[in-house]
Amino acid sequence: MAASNTIAKDRYDRVIELAKRRGFFWPSYEIYGGVAGFYDLGPLGVRLKEKIVALWRDYFIRRHNHIVVEIETPVIAPAKVFEASGHLEHFTDPIVECLRCRRKFRADHLIEEKTGIRAEGLTLEEMTRIIREHDIRCPVCGGPLSEVRAFNLLFKTTIGPYSESVGYLRPETAQGMFVSFKRVFEVSRQRLPLGIAQVGRVARNEISPRQGIMRLREFTIAEMEFFFDPEDPWHGGVLEELLGSVEHRKLRILRAEAKAQGEEKPEEYGVREAIEEGVVRTPWLAYWMAIARDFVMELGVPYGDMYFEEKAPEERAHYAAQTFDQLVRVSRLGWVEVSGHAYRTDYDLRRHMQYSGHDLRVFKQYQEPKIVRKKMVLLDRAWVGRTFRKRAREILEAARSLDPETAEKELREKGYIEVAGEKIPAEHIKIIEKEEKVTGKRFLPHVAEPSFGVERLIFVALDHAYSERGERVVLRLPRRIAPIEAAVFPIVREESLVRIARDIWRKLLENGMYAIYDDDGSIGRRYARVDEIGVPAAITVDYQTLEDNTVTLRDRDTWKQVRVPVNRIAEAVKKFIEGASLEEIGTPTS
Amino acid sequence: MAASNTIAKDRYDRVIELAKRRGFFWPSYEIYGGVAGFYDLGPLGVRLKEKIVALWRDYFIRRHNHIVVEIETPVIAPAKVFEASGHLEHFTDPIVECLRCRRKFRADHLIEEKTGIRAEGLTLEEMTRIIREHDIRCPVCGGPLSEVRAFNLLFKTTIGPYSESVGYLRPETAQGMFVSFKRVFEVSRQRLPLGIAQVGRVARNEISPRQGIMRLREFTIAEMEFFFDPEDPWHGGVLEELLGSVEHRKLRILRAEAKAQGEEKPEEYGVREAIEEGVVRTPWLAYWMAIARDFVMELGVPYGDMYFEEKAPEERAHYAAQTFDQLVRVSRLGWVEVSGHAYRTDYDLRRHMQYSGHDLRVFKQYQEPKIVRKKMVLLDRAWVGRTFRKRAREILEAARSLDPETAEKELREKGYIEVAGEKIPAEHIKIIEKEEKVTGKRFLPHVAEPSFGVERLIFVALDHAYSERGERVVLRLPRRIAPIEAAVFPIVREESLVRIARDIWRKLLENGMYAIYDDDGSIGRRYARVDEIGVPAAITVDYQTLEDNTVTLRDRDTWKQVRVPVNRIAEAVKKFIEGASLEEIGTPTS
Repeated sequence: MAASNTIAKDRYDRVIELAKRRGFFWPSYEIYGGVAGFYDLGPLGVRLKEKIVALWRDYFIRRHNHIVVEIETPVIAPAKVFEASGHLEHFTDPIVECLRCRRKFRADHLIEEKTGIRAEGLTLEEMTRIIREHDIRCPVCGGPLSEVRAFNLLFKTTIGPYSESVGYLRPETAQGMFVSFKRVFEVSRQRLPLGIAQVGRVARNEISPRQGIMRLREFTIAEMEFFFDPEDPWHGGVLEELLGSVEHRKLRILRAEAKAQGEEKPEEYGVREAIEEGVVRTPWLAYWMAIARDFVMELGVPYGDMYFEEKAPEERAHYAAQTFDQLVRVSRLGWVEVSGHAYRTDYDLRRHMQYSGHDLRVFKQYQEPKIVRKKMVLLDRAWVGRTFRKRAREILEAARSLDPETAEKELREKGYIEVAGEKIPAEHIKIIEKEEKVTGKRFLPHVAEPSFGVERLIFVALDHAYSERGERVVLRLPRRIAPIEAAVFPIVREESLVRIARDIWRKLLENGMYAIYDDDGSIGRRYARVDEIGVPAAITVDYQTLEDNTVTLRDRDTWKQVRVPVNRIAEAVKKFIEGASLEEIGTPTS
Repeated sequence: MAASNTIAKDRYDRVIELAKRRGFFWPSYEIYGGVAGFYDLGPLGVRLKEKIVALWRDYFIRRHNHIVVEIETPVIAPAKVFEASGHLEHFTDPIVECLRCRRKFRADHLIEEKTGIRAEGLTLEEMTRIIREHDIRCPVCGGPLSEVRAFNLLFKTTIGPYSESVGYLRPETAQGMFVSFKRVFEVSRQRLPLGIAQVGRVARNEISPRQGIMRLREFTIAEMEFFFDPEDPWHGGVLEELLGSVEHRKLRILRAEAKAQGEEKPEEYGVREAIEEGVVRTPWLAYWMAIARDFVMELGVPYGDMYFEEKAPEERAHYAAQTFDQLVRVSRLGWVEVSGHAYRTDYDLRRHMQYSGHDLRVFKQYQEPKIVRKKMVLLDRAWVGRTFRKRAREILEAARSLDPETAEKELREKGYIEVAGEKIPAEHIKIIEKEEKVTGKRFLPHVAEPSFGVERLIFVALDHAYSERGERVVLRLPRRIAPIEAAVFPIVREESLVRIARDIWRKLLENGMYAIYDDDGSIGRRYARVDEIGVPAAITVDYQTLEDNTVTLRDRDTWKQVRVPVNRIAEAVKKFIEGASLEEIGTPTS
């Protein structure tokens, strides 16, 4: 091979080059010099994304449509939402500025590059100290660096004509589900468990994103907030029945504890085992991880190229009690996160309840009313009236909300309790026990969240599908997610063949498929063009077609062919896409 | 009927009430008091939206997939994009501020409310004058009003950590297609015509939106930029073939001219007639209007409830040479715009070419090369060398780019021409004519744009589907866009029936449909619940099922039933959704 033009490109480069050349994706705003962190999806990228999202909906929503619904909420939200969610306070990256050239850098990345010290979880002060101690300077101009400060990653804007009406672009779709939880709960049978899913755009104002389509400032998330009763997460038979269907799945998990001890290899757990041994802290999180495993495998990722990594406490988002990243191996970049699985507890609902003043608890009716014994603090009404006169009423009111246990303790220790700022001595207080019928309870559901980055899944699918056969590229995308289902060729550009081929092409379109018609160049080149973009079925109209009304259908992966009657071609392609073998849809060519 | 609870709600109120109660849509951020111009789609709203978008893709993309592709570009764009597009300058509404209470109002709306004068198209100064002349004051506090100024409707933000890096949220997806036109053109066979479509979020910072889901600050657009050669818009047989398939369609059009003369009724035109009579200024615009007509009719809008209104020049966006709004009649609001059809010429590409410095023209090869006679300006090289010495080379270079016509004119008038700042007298100049072979031309394509507001289509579909039958609501959504395809009921909650019903429900899910299982309450109430949300097929498992393995399938609209064998039910529902009659899928119940 001539050396000139072939500076060895690695697999990653070749995937990216293919993506750009054939129209899967490319950097946005190229004619204006580009803006880091923004990508366009081209015609094939959009089709691939649609297929991946449809598959995600299939796994997470449609198959669970008795307990999961999908909603859509705005990208822009008023400031209050992110005050409540904690993002205004916590959703930051450490930044440092060159005091000479005014360039800005991510402090943790700079420290890791220059010293090898892992900076995740360090405070701003600790990072500043490391920068000073190691005399880290501006990597561009060599100038001195500022102190490290927190840079908030929310894109900020103004809603309407008043500058004080601040809004932000959401960094996750999740807050939409929390803020509208009560409304969705009401229109969805008012029963738990309830999953609320959403697929939509989010934006994160990264300081200097540098990983192409894997680290974007604006991207699509597919996520679900799954609400359940923390005291009864199994919800009768609901979880048990679902768990039965994924029981034989193994999950590869690298626990935070093991990681802290230097372990890099995940261990294998059965789904139920992961729950029972407390590896995953709440059963629904484990169930959705099993679904996530199946889903990502269907995108073409082998079992061994995927595992779940538990995040250490300092690596977790502020709302999470436990988090697992689903990692997938890709070329060059190594292990990359495609989804996060967070146990968000009742953090978000509790915060929104507090910030909005709306009761976001749900009511759960007991199977039958419970009789509970309840203590009450009673004051001597007559004495209170005599003693406090005008304040008497207020004091009696206040006494009702006293906690009986605390009151008993105070009486034991001090001989009086304080009510609305007044001392009430023990002799005027009775603490009695009463029986009460309770029909149910109000509580805040807990939440397990599986959350996928869709553009990453696009790259992962392409990277795993990319293959070479001699000089040719064959994109072995799983048939179900192939952007274009079929291509139709007349073997040569002759009118009788062209007419039949175009009729078949139209028939495929009418049957809801995306199909290509191509009569340009040799048949070999045309096969090569569609192999490269992963078209599973190539249909060729040849001279035999004129005799027996059959065409060839060629499998992208094996290059084997069968003959199929023209009038059954749409059905045959559909079956083939759904997974049928060549033999099931036609007769081998002789 | 008792009068108490029935303050007559109009149809609009009842549609909105249904939408909220059953989970189609509701105002966002309710727990925080709401923010005008933002709506959530609930579980049924998302499903309806998906179906509408799928239908749109079907009409505008899939059926045209030899000439139309879809892309996805970011919501956030750098300022340069909207400088070039003209939105920073032109995308404004007139605003006026109360000098006492500081409230802000849309000046044109205020003028229209207070004086009845139509303010669209007036300058800011003219509006200020009207406000002064009519002594219009703050409608809230009665205070005096400021001068009218322009308020830009782009949401503004900052990209990355540098405050000078301004970005905006796109108000239309269109600029994504223009900025990336060259790249899409390259990956799409490099041929015209080429439609580039996109479905995505856009944001417009309306001053005070008040029309519920019909006037949003953030919404979804489905639009296409269709690029064609303005000198040969028919592109050989391409348009002719497509036009053939919509030829018998009539378009109801109200022309701007007629409207200016007080006409309110549209006239009827055949598609070809509208082109030939110049009613629509470019044929592709008319073709896509015909497709838009079919598409909106398939959402359930009758022909008579829709027409196209040509905008007067002062009503058009800054980029449009001609615009038609597609109007649909809905309850209470009357005629509302669901799509805009703009002839954008080469305005956008030309501007981006100018602002980016990139050549965005496409090359069109002639069928065979043309011989053209071309004039050239030649200087006397020897004389130039002698006279200008070191500058000679520069002057000879510069002479190459002179326009021969201009040079001839100057020589006639002044006897010399100026080249690179030097006077060259006529005697040292020759203007000669040469023959040259030209293989093609470079030009900027023109653009026809159909653009739909998706949330408006959701409302339009609901409003047209809403019907009452006695006390009950029946949502007669066209079957193809029904959010939920089928419901499955055991006639009573008995184990043998429940088991079969749940199996059928699961079978429907596995076949890619959304289905409801419900065994709660009387069968009548269950029918009512699913009629109200437009489920086309209700399947009931009854005692006869235990005998002959058939179930009833009930049509939402006629309440008629047929019996269908259990093992053919998924197929039957699919056919029914695609339009089959009851008789085609089962046997009438006796």
